[in-house]
Amino acid sequence: MQPRERKLWGWGLASYEVPAPLLELARAFLSARLGRQLPEPRQAPTLDSIHMPEPARPMPPPLRDFATTERCDRAVHTYGKAFRDVVRALDGDFSPAPDFVAYPRDEADIQTVLRLAESERLAVIPFGGGSSVVGGIEPESASRARYSAVLSLDLRRLDRVLEVDRASRCARVQAGVYGPALESQLRPHGYTLRHFPQSFEFSTLGGWIATRAGGHFATLYTHIDDLCESLRMLSPRGSVETRRLPGNGAGPEQNRLLLGSEGAFGVITEAWLRLQDLPRFRASCTVRFASFESGAAACQALSQSGLFPANARLIERDEALFMGAGDGEHHILVLGFESAQFPQDDKLRAAISLCEATGGKPGRVSLRTTEHGSSDDAAEQWKQSFVRAPYLRDELVRSGLLCETFETCTTWANFPALDAAVRTAAQQVLASECGGGLLTCRFTHLYPDGPAPYYTVIAPSEFGKQVAQWDAVKDAVSDALIASGATITHHHAVGKDHRRHYLRQGDELAIAMLQAAKSAVDPAGIMNPGTLLPLRT
Amino acid sequence: MQPRERKLWGWGLASYEVPAPLLELARAFLSARLGRQLPEPRQAPTLDSIHMPEPARPMPPPLRDFATTERCDRAVHTYGKAFRDVVRALDGDFSPAPDFVAYPRDEADIQTVLRLAESERLAVIPFGGGSSVVGGIEPESASRARYSAVLSLDLRRLDRVLEVDRASRCARVQAGVYGPALESQLRPHGYTLRHFPQSFEFSTLGGWIATRAGGHFATLYTHIDDLCESLRMLSPRGSVETRRLPGNGAGPEQNRLLLGSEGAFGVITEAWLRLQDLPRFRASCTVRFASFESGAAACQALSQSGLFPANARLIERDEALFMGAGDGEHHILVLGFESAQFPQDDKLRAAISLCEATGGKPGRVSLRTTEHGSSDDAAEQWKQSFVRAPYLRDELVRSGLLCETFETCTTWANFPALDAAVRTAAQQVLASECGGGLLTCRFTHLYPDGPAPYYTVIAPSEFGKQVAQWDAVKDAVSDALIASGATITHHHAVGKDHRRHYLRQGDELAIAMLQAAKSAVDPAGIMNPGTLLPLRT
Repeated sequence: MQPRERKLWGWGLASYEVPAPLLELARAFLSARLGRQLPEPRQAPTLDSIHMPEPARPMPPPLRDFATTERCDRAVHTYGKAFRDVVRALDGDFSPAPDFVAYPRDEADIQTVLRLAESERLAVIPFGGGSSVVGGIEPESASRARYSAVLSLDLRRLDRVLEVDRASRCARVQAGVYGPALESQLRPHGYTLRHFPQSFEFSTLGGWIATRAGGHFATLYTHIDDLCESLRMLSPRGSVETRRLPGNGAGPEQNRLLLGSEGAFGVITEAWLRLQDLPRFRASCTVRFASFESGAAACQALSQSGLFPANARLIERDEALFMGAGDGEHHILVLGFESAQFPQDDKLRAAISLCEATGGKPGRVSLRTTEHGSSDDAAEQWKQSFVRAPYLRDELVRSGLLCETFETCTTWANFPALDAAVRTAAQQVLASECGGGLLTCRFTHLYPDGPAPYYTVIAPSEFGKQVAQWDAVKDAVSDALIASGATITHHHAVGKDHRRHYLRQGDELAIAMLQAAKSAVDPAGIMNPGTLLPLRT
Repeated sequence: MQPRERKLWGWGLASYEVPAPLLELARAFLSARLGRQLPEPRQAPTLDSIHMPEPARPMPPPLRDFATTERCDRAVHTYGKAFRDVVRALDGDFSPAPDFVAYPRDEADIQTVLRLAESERLAVIPFGGGSSVVGGIEPESASRARYSAVLSLDLRRLDRVLEVDRASRCARVQAGVYGPALESQLRPHGYTLRHFPQSFEFSTLGGWIATRAGGHFATLYTHIDDLCESLRMLSPRGSVETRRLPGNGAGPEQNRLLLGSEGAFGVITEAWLRLQDLPRFRASCTVRFASFESGAAACQALSQSGLFPANARLIERDEALFMGAGDGEHHILVLGFESAQFPQDDKLRAAISLCEATGGKPGRVSLRTTEHGSSDDAAEQWKQSFVRAPYLRDELVRSGLLCETFETCTTWANFPALDAAVRTAAQQVLASECGGGLLTCRFTHLYPDGPAPYYTVIAPSEFGKQVAQWDAVKDAVSDALIASGATITHHHAVGKDHRRHYLRQGDELAIAMLQAAKSAVDPAGIMNPGTLLPLRT
């Protein structure tokens, strides 16, 4: 997949079209729900129509072999995929474009970039698949004056599984590999990483690690963190490489210092990953609940049961209906177990009994066994339910809707208060900014001490004001998250969009420790300036 | 338990005596195995007979309400419980004694200590139960000249469970609480932490957190890390307090920055802990293996099976025999499952079938169900098999034996090479230093990508040379661990004893990041100088 195959203004491939009936259904449903006509979709911008400044300076000669100033490359490296990114791209505003896009062929090229960046004061933005929804890969305008230019460092060429260790069930993998390419390289060995974020097709291992992405498993191995045995990162001061250790106890855990560093410390280049055998046994069921509270109570019981379902997503009825997964009257819990070795029927039955105890009504139980392990139907399911969503979101934004999500986690004890605070804040700000709107919730991951609630906002918006409208909504709901003791992100990372609330979330002194740690590897402050940590004053 | 109830020169209570027949058996067994007569036990030192310098300076007045220079208090805060600590104590050498021992009543007292320590250049050594086996609580002699005095900060008065959150199954607990007191405060609520390190009786929550202690569960929740929802630490620059978040994804994980910091960043004062329901259903079995390799193969299969046994300890035959748990011909795997809600029979059967596939012979299966959840028999079992061991070790050291352990973790692929390298190094150094000796191995924890091997060394030694002999052995086996790609510690921490190998283990730049992080909270370098991180030059 080449840069020019990517859609210029939003998610995925330029060639993909949302099926017209599906789009029509979505528009009709939302039009009815929001009580207003949706405008005709806006024209999509083209490479010729967008506004993009010339590069701030000529390309430094050492970069010429693997970097470019091509308009197309710069355009697809300008924004992530948040609502505010799509809107600005639709507006044709590509003023934040990086000056150069580099495609290093190997670590030596990365070292060339970092060396040059220090001496020539280039800002370096590590780029995986560009699926950030938090402004993680966009140059900060405030930082522009501090640097001679901004370089987007795209790791797509480092895309190989280098080694497989069967005994330890691990693989050494280059950070620039995209999700599907990773899985297809693992499959001949009988393995799968089973890390399927919604961005799977258009995000990379390095991006997952840098942002602590959340994946397939609803319990236990929720973040990519848990799947990383060791990491390798290149920083301006040299390489950081942790040992392959299953459970190292020497000092503060070094992998965890790099996981979630969002390019602010350096560039993740490789990792040893803990793999899974391809599942053979699957047991799943959809359970309906008359109230979200009773569904949440079932999730709480499940999370503390030691059953560890692979899938346990509680979806609010409106959202389930819109996703074609419910009847609109019931909240649904999608429940699933999987194993390469053992039938999961008993576990599913035990989980269902916990759901019934809080009022859940189980649907048909599905028990499947495949002769050989396969990832096909999990992949298919994911494709069906998830892949289309961001494409559809783009089309709805073109149709004048504000469509965005935010996510968090909190304790079971605190969830009701948090949810109430979020809903109150959202309703107020949606009323004043957009004249109303919808807010739905689902749980994406479950922990023994609490859920990870994921909210979706859909509201009418006004062309020309959409970014400001969303910023106001986001500010209000983020304030509610922080005031309620939750986190600004469970798995979307901080980037620049969440930074202010991340700093308010604290802990201030812990963040000062991270800032000091950054200085030890990036004293010149060239690595992804303004992402995660503020620019030093 | 007051300081004067503690044994001056080794493990536990002064009042406890190892049953004479047990000691006689152990002496006879080891005498036969080592092929030499053991000398008569040395005289134990008394408070009057030991050498301890006077405090380096008078007590600063602000500390007088809660600190002391009493000889007894200083003596029991001088050493941890490593072999080299016991030997020096038996020698009556208490020259490293701290000058003051403080027993803060609350956080205000701790703040007083930290403030004063900065202005008066006191070295501050946070002290939990004093069970360090890596020199974690001993003042470094090289640091003495840099400080006006050394203060041991004993948190024993901060020993309460402050809050219980039933919905989230968590409790807020003060760091100075000892294991038994913690469990007895949780039991009325129907909960248990189920963190049972061998040191359980004589170690504290704060110590577990600062050293990343390993506990009860052989899989999944192996370290205290996994049980910590949030932490509070007081540093010289102020408090660090993380939010209660089940799965925070905002930036590098802040809890993990404090876990394993060994007092070098500050003093852990509180934590929110993830609790367990008291187990009702238990299923266990001991499986015999003719070779350690076939036992290890079973452990590998178990670790990758998704069954997650609570207990899965593979014990080499000599060690099993010595612990009274085997016939001396077979290596044994102690296998157990537990749950508060569901019978574990099927899981145990599945685990046994994996063991049989690699040649394991299962013994009698034990299935137990209790009416109400109980922790009694797990606690009893632990008491029987574990509690006596360090007391017995002390007596054997008095009888002229070198008795010590070291532990690590590595990948399944690397374990055979690591084990061979360790055995070769140990045999050579034991032959040259001690004229021979025994080395045994067990697996204490299992991960999908590798085991945590735990080695025990027993050898003849010479009074007056014991510390030097062990240091030579330790150096040789530590070199082997590091050269073989393993870690210097899986759950014993780094302290001062492992520091040199910790720095060789790397990563150098990651350690520079930790050093920078320390400077952000402890710019004067008063916190546990020389532990984990080297003194700044």
